[in-house]
Amino acid sequence: DFLHALHEIIPAFGASTDDLERCRLNGFVECGDQNKENFQKAMLLVEQVKVSKGSPPFTCLLEGPSGSGKSALAATVGIDSDFPYVKIVSAEAMIGLHESTKCAQIVKVFEDAYKSPLSIIILDEIERLLEYVPIGPRFSHIISQTLLVLLKRLPPKGKNLLVIGTTSEVGFLYSVGFCYAFSVAYHVPTLKTDDAKKVLQQLNVFADEDMDAAAEALNDVPIKKLYMLIEMAAKGKSGGASEAIYSGKEKIRMSHFYDCLKDAVRY
Amino acid sequence: DFLHALHEIIPAFGASTDDLERCRLNGFVECGDQNKENFQKAMLLVEQVKVSKGSPPFTCLLEGPSGSGKSALAATVGIDSDFPYVKIVSAEAMIGLHESTKCAQIVKVFEDAYKSPLSIIILDEIERLLEYVPIGPRFSHIISQTLLVLLKRLPPKGKNLLVIGTTSEVGFLYSVGFCYAFSVAYHVPTLKTDDAKKVLQQLNVFADEDMDAAAEALNDVPIKKLYMLIEMAAKGKSGGASEAIYSGKEKIRMSHFYDCLKDAVRY
Amino acid sequence: DFLHALHEIIPAFGASTDDLERCRLNGFVECGDQNKENFQKAMLLVEQVKVSKGSPPFTCLLEGPSGSGKSALAATVGIDSDFPYVKIVSAEAMIGLHESTKCAQIVKVFEDAYKSPLSIIILDEIERLLEYVPIGPRFSHIISQTLLVLLKRLPPKGKNLLVIGTTSEVGFLYSVGFCYAFSVAYHVPTLKTDDAKKVLQQLNVFADEDMDAAAEALNDVPIKKLYMLIEMAAKGKSGGASEAIYSGKEKIRMSHFYDCLKDAVRY
Amino acid sequence: DFLHALHEIIPAFGASTDDLERCRLNGFVECGDQNKENFQKAMLLVEQVKVSKGSPPFTCLLEGPSGSGKSALAATVGIDSDFPYVKIVSAEAMIGLHESTKCAQIVKVFEDAYKSPLSIIILDEIERLLEYVPIGPRFSHIISQTLLVLLKRLPPKGKNLLVIGTTSEVGFLYSVGFCYAFSVAYHVPTLKTDDAKKVLQQLNVFADEDMDAAAEALNDVPIKKLYMLIEMAAKGKSGGASEAIYSGKEKIRMSHFYDCLKDAVRY
Amino acid sequence: DFLHALHEIIPAFGASTDDLERCRLNGFVECGDQNKENFQKAMLLVEQVKVSKGSPPFTCLLEGPSGSGKSALAATVGIDSDFPYVKIVSAEAMIGLHESTKCAQIVKVFEDAYKSPLSIIILDEIERLLEYVPIGPRFSHIISQTLLVLLKRLPPKGKNLLVIGTTSEVGFLYSVGFCYAFSVAYHVPTLKTDDAKKVLQQLNVFADEDMDAAAEALNDVPIKKLYMLIEMAAKGKSGGASEAIYSGKEKIRMSHFYDCLKDAVRY
Amino acid sequence: DFLHALHEIIPAFGASTDDLERCRLNGFVECGDQNKENFQKAMLLVEQVKVSKGSPPFTCLLEGPSGSGKSALAATVGIDSDFPYVKIVSAEAMIGLHESTKCAQIVKVFEDAYKSPLSIIILDEIERLLEYVPIGPRFSHIISQTLLVLLKRLPPKGKNLLVIGTTSEVGFLYSVGFCYAFSVAYHVPTLKTDDAKKVLQQLNVFADEDMDAAAEALNDVPIKKLYMLIEMAAKGKSGGASEAIYSGKEKIRMSHFYDCLKDAVRY
Ligand SMILES: Nc1ncnc2c1ncn2[C@@H]1O[C@H](COP(=O)(O)OP(=O)(O)OP(=O)(O)O)[C@@H](O)[C@H]1O
Ligand SMILES: Nc1ncnc2c1ncn2[C@@H]1O[C@H](COP(=O)(O)OP(=O)(O)OP(=O)(O)O)[C@@H](O)[C@H]1O
Ligand SMILES: Nc1ncnc2c1ncn2[C@@H]1O[C@H](COP(=O)(O)OP(=O)(O)OP(=O)(O)O)[C@@H](O)[C@H]1O
Ligand SMILES: Nc1ncnc2c1ncn2[C@@H]1O[C@H](COP(=O)(O)OP(=O)(O)OP(=O)(O)O)[C@@H](O)[C@H]1O
Ligand SMILES: Nc1ncnc2c1ncn2[C@@H]1O[C@H](COP(=O)(O)OP(=O)(O)OP(=O)(O)O)[C@@H](O)[C@H]1O
Ligand SMILES: Nc1ncnc2c1ncn2[C@@H]1O[C@H](COP(=O)(O)OP(=O)(O)OP(=O)(O)O)[C@@H](O)[C@H]1O
Ligand SMILES: [Mg+2]
Ligand SMILES: [Mg+2]
Ligand SMILES: [Mg+2]
Ligand SMILES: [Mg+2]
Ligand SMILES: [Mg+2]
Ligand SMILES: [Mg+2]
Repeated sequence: DFLHALHEIIPAFGASTDDLERCRLNGFVECGDQNKENFQKAMLLVEQVKVSKGSPPFTCLLEGPSGSGKSALAATVGIDSDFPYVKIVSAEAMIGLHESTKCAQIVKVFEDAYKSPLSIIILDEIERLLEYVPIGPRFSHIISQTLLVLLKRLPPKGKNLLVIGTTSEVGFLYSVGFCYAFSVAYHVPTLKTDDAKKVLQQLNVFADEDMDAAAEALNDVPIKKLYMLIEMAAKGKSGGASEAIYSGKEKIRMSHFYDCLKDAVRY
Repeated sequence: DFLHALHEIIPAFGASTDDLERCRLNGFVECGDQNKENFQKAMLLVEQVKVSKGSPPFTCLLEGPSGSGKSALAATVGIDSDFPYVKIVSAEAMIGLHESTKCAQIVKVFEDAYKSPLSIIILDEIERLLEYVPIGPRFSHIISQTLLVLLKRLPPKGKNLLVIGTTSEVGFLYSVGFCYAFSVAYHVPTLKTDDAKKVLQQLNVFADEDMDAAAEALNDVPIKKLYMLIEMAAKGKSGGASEAIYSGKEKIRMSHFYDCLKDAVRY
Repeated sequence: DFLHALHEIIPAFGASTDDLERCRLNGFVECGDQNKENFQKAMLLVEQVKVSKGSPPFTCLLEGPSGSGKSALAATVGIDSDFPYVKIVSAEAMIGLHESTKCAQIVKVFEDAYKSPLSIIILDEIERLLEYVPIGPRFSHIISQTLLVLLKRLPPKGKNLLVIGTTSEVGFLYSVGFCYAFSVAYHVPTLKTDDAKKVLQQLNVFADEDMDAAAEALNDVPIKKLYMLIEMAAKGKSGGASEAIYSGKEKIRMSHFYDCLKDAVRY
Repeated sequence: DFLHALHEIIPAFGASTDDLERCRLNGFVECGDQNKENFQKAMLLVEQVKVSKGSPPFTCLLEGPSGSGKSALAATVGIDSDFPYVKIVSAEAMIGLHESTKCAQIVKVFEDAYKSPLSIIILDEIERLLEYVPIGPRFSHIISQTLLVLLKRLPPKGKNLLVIGTTSEVGFLYSVGFCYAFSVAYHVPTLKTDDAKKVLQQLNVFADEDMDAAAEALNDVPIKKLYMLIEMAAKGKSGGASEAIYSGKEKIRMSHFYDCLKDAVRY
Repeated sequence: DFLHALHEIIPAFGASTDDLERCRLNGFVECGDQNKENFQKAMLLVEQVKVSKGSPPFTCLLEGPSGSGKSALAATVGIDSDFPYVKIVSAEAMIGLHESTKCAQIVKVFEDAYKSPLSIIILDEIERLLEYVPIGPRFSHIISQTLLVLLKRLPPKGKNLLVIGTTSEVGFLYSVGFCYAFSVAYHVPTLKTDDAKKVLQQLNVFADEDMDAAAEALNDVPIKKLYMLIEMAAKGKSGGASEAIYSGKEKIRMSHFYDCLKDAVRY
Repeated sequence: DFLHALHEIIPAFGASTDDLERCRLNGFVECGDQNKENFQKAMLLVEQVKVSKGSPPFTCLLEGPSGSGKSALAATVGIDSDFPYVKIVSAEAMIGLHESTKCAQIVKVFEDAYKSPLSIIILDEIERLLEYVPIGPRFSHIISQTLLVLLKRLPPKGKNLLVIGTTSEVGFLYSVGFCYAFSVAYHVPTLKTDDAKKVLQQLNVFADEDMDAAAEALNDVPIKKLYMLIEMAAKGKSGGASEAIYSGKEKIRMSHFYDCLKDAVRY
């Protein structure tokens, strides 16, 4: 089955598994049909890359709201691909660098990939790589040009490359013509009531009679926020209740849970 | 009780208590239910950080009108947290520096925090850190990118971090997508008539029969302006009356008090 | 009385009295109730600074049309304050400097003030300090940020500071949120017919029967323009009449006076 | 016939045939009447250049949607021209360079061409050479000026030059007056149902009864996307089916083919 | 009389008479009442400067359409003032310099003036000094700030200064608040029919019966264009007629004169 | 007659005749009344310059659609002027230079001209010299300022200068106030049906019965495009027909001629 498959594959030598694992600290649980399908389609792309005989990079964009699990999905595909070169390009690793240095580093990642017969490059949070701010709007002209060219550039003979991009600003990417640089785009959604319920059942922190109400309240919430809210709610109104909750001795109080929901920043 | 608790906690070695104390020269008196609740919720976050087992930084935004007590609240939470590393990042300390130097200093604060098991970083007046001016609007692109990445970056294993931001320009922060980098946001309000009255009663500078009118006139005033107005009004129309007022021998004249209100810059 | 008081006070050692005196070459005559009140209120602030026990700088903005006497008022307050450190910050003294050098000089003035127990800093023509031009609009981003931070920064213990700003572009200052950095704002008005009449009576250059018409024509004129117009009109249509006029032998001809009014640039 | 002619011509010594061949990895098959005509007209231009006796460069713009075969056409004309100097100028080869360096390289290509009696320069993806992004819109001012001048500059006596430009942003090129720098412009279209059907018949991956539906679904698709979709669809829903499909043992399932169409990024 | 007076005065040692004379190659003839009055008023200002006892610079703006005689008027005032320091600041003399160098040179001119008891500085074509272009609109921020401060700066004791500015872009000067830096503004007009007629009568190049028609056609023409048109028209349709015309042997043909009018660039 | 005169004049030593000749590779044939008149008027200006006794540069702008013959006209005037210094300033010769270097070169050309008693400077394609692009719109601020000053600057005594500018963007030149820097402006038009017919009759490539239709189709076409279209049409649909056409053995087929018209980029 789907989740089982994830654990059978051991990442090959050379891939920066540590960086990838940091993107899925909570592992990779099943959270809805669309996410499952996204994973399967992405793994099919991986297969396609393996048998390709010379072509421009395969390119796939994961887009969806902030915190919906795009990076976790990309990292999991990278880990499970078994490719000798898997690299994540993230703003985090280039903090404080000048935009031309960032370009150089990005080009370097592609050139390294060209040396491996099979590679995956993850461009994580493309809007952040492009230093995008909505006012103006402003973003790095030179980084955007560099990426646009790299996404189209033919690797050397016998080298095959899959590029996975993630973004929560798909509107911006369209407006700068960036989306057209990707062949396929998969939408990574927020959780629906049903998806949230499944995750809550595994966590087992609500009383049975509250489960439906809690799941309902979490409709349309990104998975990241679900985890955060449960952690806050488990503390209790006056703190210190977590242990009792997680050990199953107590359950989260719905009134406190609703309070936590109220303070959370809305998207 | 609430205020009592504040004074029991001795800040641990390493925290820059001096800088924090400068943010609450008037101490930290009770001034309304919402402020009390804000303090309690923030202290709960502190508890949550203590027991966290690896996660991105906890992030909390204090937003409200200028002078409403956001910095004082953040500083008090920092002092009362008992964390080994508590640091306030303020524009004041980086005056005249180039924006890239500011970035480097901010990154340094985060890297220092990553060395302590428990840390709090206060990003005070984020709009000022971002060098925001409403016309244009303009702000530092590079500082905003740096902060956005830092607010999301996972600390090393075993290190837990709470980031408290303050701002009186929450509209701007939303417009640049900055608010979404915070998990929770608490509103720090101006004083309502009732809140103002409580503070006035403690100060005891108005005649009993004037108290209600004075409190009414101070409805919707930030606490900072209340202190300033009382200080000005206490002088009297021709100066030199303060001593008599504060010692209780005389009371502030309402007509002079209203005059002072008129000259004050309105927000 | 008001004017009498002005002359009793000898500026203390260390204050740059020369710079201040250059701001009021014509001395400081009475010119209307509001101006008198402005002076008194500002002197009360001076008193308040003297007895303050640690607080952010006292801040006071003088705003009004160009030439209405703002700089003269600020300089007079500075001279009369008897404070050991009184300094005027003006664009004139920093002509041709790069904006970052200007920032450094401004910071230096504040740091110097922090060494004196009692200080006044006059930020003269803030719009010019900010290098403001209405088209764009454009102004120095870095100087505005520096001033905003300095206006809020707490001086060291035991040091008290009054900052007086002047501006004839109060709309611009509001639009960049600069006004909110000041606690109080006093409006320095143009002369009304009555105010103008008082000044004219002292000058004694019009025939008695022309006095009212002349004052009427000068309604809403800034004091600076009144002085300029009288000087021009006194010359007479073909020059050389000044001596006769000022010695009282002749009076200004109304028709020539009206001509002079016509050529003057209107605000 | 048309396709036959293509293979008779051996590119002359000196032309960078490798670069050109990389632009048409799939060879150059017949795909519609308009494309055939475009090729013929472009080859006529080649003939005209051969007999020209001193004139500004002949200039021809190939414009059409992304992936419609513009670069492949330009490269084929270059290869088939038999000219001693054929050079492709592409953003790919200048990645990460400063715009003034790019200018220098472009000028160099023209100066090299001036040394050969007969030359072709392909300006591939002019919008990318100009570092165009639609927001702003922004592009390189200096590269655009350089190209505008080069497109008009008279080569030395006895040297004849054909410049072929390609672009998928013809609207932008018009808006900056760039189109007027070309004498003729040919439109390279997407495939129509009939064109697609011809290509599909050659590929032989659909069952006979599905052919029409598949061609219909591919109406208005650029040839690049047709190839990509067939490759994805051939994999099958669970991967690994390609061999069977391409060897003719199996056919592509229409339902899976439609799924692939859905994920593809739309232009 | 007016014109007579102009020739009696010998410019004092030190003034750059050559530069000034280049501004009025055609001498300074009478051309209309308003121009005469402008000259008289400006000379009165000169008188006023002479007897001033310490004040900010006297400032006078000459504004009017291009070619109406502003520079000639300013230069004539400078020459006739008999002041020891008369200097014209023009874009011509600073061609190709960086804006900060221009600032330095302008400041230098003022500092030099501060050394002379009586000085005139002519800021010729302020819009050109400010490097103004209407699109944007754009102009030099730093030069505008420098001039604004200089126009207000008090000269040292005992030094008196008159600044005369000229501009044909008075709308722009108003929009940047530059006009307010001048105390008086005189409008330098185009020629009206009557003014033109007077000039034509002196030139004596038209037949008596054509004089009125010619003057009529020249209504609202700047004096510069009148001179240019006469010079062109005097050539005749096929050239070479000038000598005959100027010697009075022939007259300008009206039909040719009208043709010349048609080609002239209209303002 | 007009054309005859052109060939009698031998350009004087020192003029860069080669550069000028490159602007009129096809010689200078008669093509319409207005063009003839333009040439005559420009030659009259040349005469006027010869007899001028000190004045600002004579300035003449040739404006009209792209390819209408402006540069050819300017070059012909330059060649026929017989002036010792004739220089064409074109973007071509300054390709890739920084804008300040371009300024320096332009200034140099003027300074060189100031050394010759009689000079012509051709500013060819002013919009290109100004590095104009319509989007923004953007252009070189510093080059525009430099040219504006140079166009007005008085040459040294005894030196006379004619500046001829050409532009196909007269709207832009007006919008930046550039046109006003020229005294006269001549419009260089496209060919009308009659003009085109005359040129076609000389070329003799159409059958007599097609002549009118061809001329009609060429109405409003710039002369440059007429030459290009004839050259393309002469090739024939399948190439190689030129010789037969030009030798008069065959005529251009109208259907093919119309096809060529269709591909040509429209202005
Ligand atoms: N399938 C999953 N199983 C378990 N945890 C998950 C899963 N998907 C996401 N998460 C967790 O949810 C959180 C958010 O996921 P992730 O960072 O991948 O979201 P994102 O879409 O990349 O967000 P952003 O837009 O902010 O980059 C992470 O802590 C991640 O570990
Ligand atoms: N609870 C409190 N008890 C006593 N004094 C307080 C309290 N809250 C705020 N103050 C005082 O009020 C003033 C304003 O508070 P503070 O600077 O924290 O406001 P702020 O919201 O950060 O303002 P700004 O938006 O300008 O940064 C300070 O002098 C502070 O000491
Ligand atoms: N009360 C006064 N008595 C005598 N002279 C005065 C008085 N107020 C102003 N003046 C004179 O009027 C002139 C203008 O005053 P001042 O420069 O202070 O105006 P301002 O408002 O600062 O103008 P600006 O907006 O241009 O800076 C100065 O010459 C000053 O000396
Ligand atoms: N006539 C053809 N025969 C075979 N393959 C073709 C033909 N035309 C184009 N292709 C192939 O289709 C793909 C797209 O073609 P090409 O890159 O030339 O398109 P393009 O219009 O230049 O696209 P872009 O706008 O993205 O630059 C390439 O892989 C190319 O090899
Ligand atoms: N009163 C005059 N008598 C004789 N010639 C004059 C007179 N006024 C102007 N001129 C001449 O007219 C021409 C234009 O005058 P001037 O250059 O002073 O105009 P301007 O208004 O400064 O123009 P611009 O706006 O272009 O700077 C000059 O050649 C000048 O010598
Ligand atoms: N009178 C003429 N006789 C013969 N050929 C001419 C004539 N006028 C122009 N041409 C030719 O027509 C072509 C276009 O002329 P030219 O380059 O002068 O046009 P232009 O108006 O300067 O165009 P652009 O706006 O593109 O600079 C040139 O090849 C030129 O030689
Ligand atoms: Mg992510
Ligand atoms: Mg604060
Ligand atoms: Mg002032
Ligand atoms: Mg292409
Ligand atoms: Mg002038
Ligand atoms: Mg030309």
